[in-house]
This record gives sequence, C-alpha cells and structure tokens, in this order.
Amino acid sequence: MISPRALLFDTFGTIVDWRSSLIEELSNFGLDRGISADWSGLVDAWRGAYVPSMNRVRKGELPWTKLDDLHRATLGRLADEFGVSGLSDEDLCRINRGWHRLRPWPDSVAGLTRLKQHFIVAPLSNGNVSLLLNMAKHAGLPWDMIFGSDLFNHFKPDRETYLGACSLLDLPPEAVMLCAAHNSDLRVARALGLATAFIARPTEYGPHQRRDFEAEEAWDIVAANVEDLADKLGAV
Amino acid sequence: MISPRALLFDTFGTIVDWRSSLIEELSNFGLDRGISADWSGLVDAWRGAYVPSMNRVRKGELPWTKLDDLHRATLGRLADEFGVSGLSDEDLCRINRGWHRLRPWPDSVAGLTRLKQHFIVAPLSNGNVSLLLNMAKHAGLPWDMIFGSDLFNHFKPDRETYLGACSLLDLPPEAVMLCAAHNSDLRVARALGLATAFIARPTEYGPHQRRDFEAEEAWDIVAANVEDLADKLGAV
Repeated sequence: MISPRALLFDTFGTIVDWRSSLIEELSNFGLDRGISADWSGLVDAWRGAYVPSMNRVRKGELPWTKLDDLHRATLGRLADEFGVSGLSDEDLCRINRGWHRLRPWPDSVAGLTRLKQHFIVAPLSNGNVSLLLNMAKHAGLPWDMIFGSDLFNHFKPDRETYLGACSLLDLPPEAVMLCAAHNSDLRVARALGLATAFIARPTEYGPHQRRDFEAEEAWDIVAANVEDLADKLGAV
Repeated sequence: MISPRALLFDTFGTIVDWRSSLIEELSNFGLDRGISADWSGLVDAWRGAYVPSMNRVRKGELPWTKLDDLHRATLGRLADEFGVSGLSDEDLCRINRGWHRLRPWPDSVAGLTRLKQHFIVAPLSNGNVSLLLNMAKHAGLPWDMIFGSDLFNHFKPDRETYLGACSLLDLPPEAVMLCAAHNSDLRVARALGLATAFIARPTEYGPHQRRDFEAEEAWDIVAANVEDLADKLGAV
C-alpha cells in the first residue's frame, strides 16, 4: 500500500478545466465588446503554443520567463492571426488574466478538501505562483503550499521542478506522489522516484483530445477523478 | 485607508508562541526520559543563538543553511552546555522538530481565518518551507502560500525576502502589508515600501522580554492581536 506524505497536482487539465473556462471568458468578452471571432479556435491555438513557448525557455533560446508573460506574448500574436483588432493593452491583460480564473472540475475542491485532512496538498505546475495563488483564491482550491515554476525558474518536465518541490518539502521522492492527467508527466515523476497517480480527464481538450484517455502504465493509483483518488488513498 | 491585497506575517513570536511551546516539549521529553535540566534556560539560549546563527549566513561566513539545520547545530552545542547527556541523534532530531509543532497564540487561527476571506495570507518567515508547512498542518494555520526563507536563500532582514515575496505575488510593495510583533522587522518593510501592521506580543520572551512591548513608530495599523487586526482591516 502506497502511503505518501505529500500529493503534488498538475493543475491545468488535472484540477481546472482551462478550455471551457477560457472559451466562456473570451466569448463573453466578445459579446460585451461586439467582437465576433473564432474564440474556441483562438483558445485551442493559445494552448497549442504552450509547450513550444516553454520549450524556448527550456532550451535556452529565451531567458527565464514566467508563464503569464509567455501567455501574454502568444495572445498578442494570436489576436492578429484571428482577426481580433482594436484591443488595448488593458484588454489583452484582462484576457490574459483569464488563466487566473479557470474553473475547477466539479470533483476538484471536494476531493482536495478531503485529501488535505490526511496529506500535504500542493500544485506542481508550470504556472507562476501568482497565477496559481489567484486561481486558488478564485476557485477555492485549498492548497497547503504553492509550487509554481517561478520557484525553480524551470518548467516541467525539467527535473528541477519535481526534485525542487521534494527538497522544499524535506521529503524523499518516494514520500511524494505526483497526481496528473498526463501520462508523460507521470513518466518523468516515476523515473525520479516519486509515486504516481493518474487522474482521467478525457474531455480536457474537447473534440481535439488525442491522448491521455487512460493510464498507459501501471501507475501506483489510477483514479476517475480527485474524489476517487481520495477514496483510493483512504481519505474519508 | 490602507487596502492591501496580501498580508505577510512574521511567524515566530507573531503567530506562534515558540517559548512556552518549546519549554513544554522539552520538559515533557525530560520527564519521559528521566532527564532533569534547566529546560527553560536551554530554550532561551536556543532562541538567543537564532539571530547570531543567521547572521553567520547573512555575512557569508556560512553558505546558505536552512533554519532547521542552524537550529540543529545550536541544539547539539547547548545540550552539552546544559549538561544534557546521552541523547541520540534521533533524540536531537525529535527535539529539533519541536519548532515544527509550535502552538499558535489563541487568536491566530481565528484571525487568519477571517483575514483569508478578504486577503492573501502567508507567512514571511526565517523558517524553511517544510518547517512552516508542518507547523501549519499541526496548528491549523490557514495559509494561502508559504514564503519560507529557503525560497530566497536569504534571511530577514535581507531585502531579498520582502521584495522576493512581492515579486512572486506579482504585487507592488505598497499592496503588501507586513504584520509583525517586532518593530525592527517593520522598519525594514516600510523602508522597502510595504505597508505595516504591528501586533503586540508582550509575553513572547516571557520574563526576558526587553523590547517590542508597543509600537515604536506610527505603523499603518497597530493591533492587539490577529483578531484585532482583522477588525481593523474590516475583515468581518
């Protein structure tokens, strides 16, 4: 029986539903301002630029840049590409802050609240601390600590993030469990000695979901959602 | 009217009563093990070594060393000085972890719980993240984020701690309030542009208290305790 002391959660996709939250935010913004555009397409393209933009930092093409700033740069480019014109810098900042207001999946708050009674719970996310903190206040996520990527000046899957969190927790990797909806994230965590829990989020990418419908390895726990993870960890 | 977005709290003395907690821990340990010693004197000497030991790091005489490790080194020396013999390394580690189990002042949890509804609340402490996190779990301190000194590899009053927390919060210093029982801590925060709140803890050092009986400058808020701070910030 796996018995971790701390549970670290991937956040975008695993805890919050970025896609439908952002599509709603942008659609409402468009209605308010009388701008019609392919908002769903813009959101999908925005997320599509996420890994490539972080990889520019990871490969040293860019100095350390926090995710808010990568998001903002991508947004400026995509607004042009999607023919959304006339937006002020304040508008773009407001839209960019949509990442701070993402909605949790329906089971996230209830599951984390149960788990917090028994374990340390914290995000381990590519988001920066302020993004994750504002998100937590907005969504009621009951984190004990926030491991943003700007604590390490590294993005996942760099080992500095997983091992940096273990070091700050003063726990060996085997006492820490990464909980994620992405098999690739769990593979890195397992290779570094962390325990692993897969949480299925088969609608994260909407009609564009191509992977992560199910666990691809024998992860320590495979859960349908965060409440199911709490059940399987005995957090009543 | 001051209206901060985030409240940062000094922890040892301001939120938790380190002295009576540690005297009780050590006295109980002595009873359990049939060791009699001047436990109060040992605790006072332990705390007395706190600033000098951090100053060795701040001045570059020691490389970055987290507070748990400074405490542990001091404890080994003081056990000898106070004639406490026969302790194993495990015993010393157990005693050292007493800093992770400090009791909050009676108003701390209730006051922070109210403040958390309106503000970001976090410690800004010389403790390391794991110490502060274990303390929060043990004492029920409802932090939103934990700013331990090992996020900055600096101890207060180095400016890197105050400004580092503002930077991670993505807030200008004037939107951040330091809340502390120590006038010296508030002086540094004010010089760096932070808002300030004094919280009186006139019994922190027991019979050895020599300073900080009251506010020595016109801090933005002067409060009798954390509940009074919540009253004065309008956090109902």
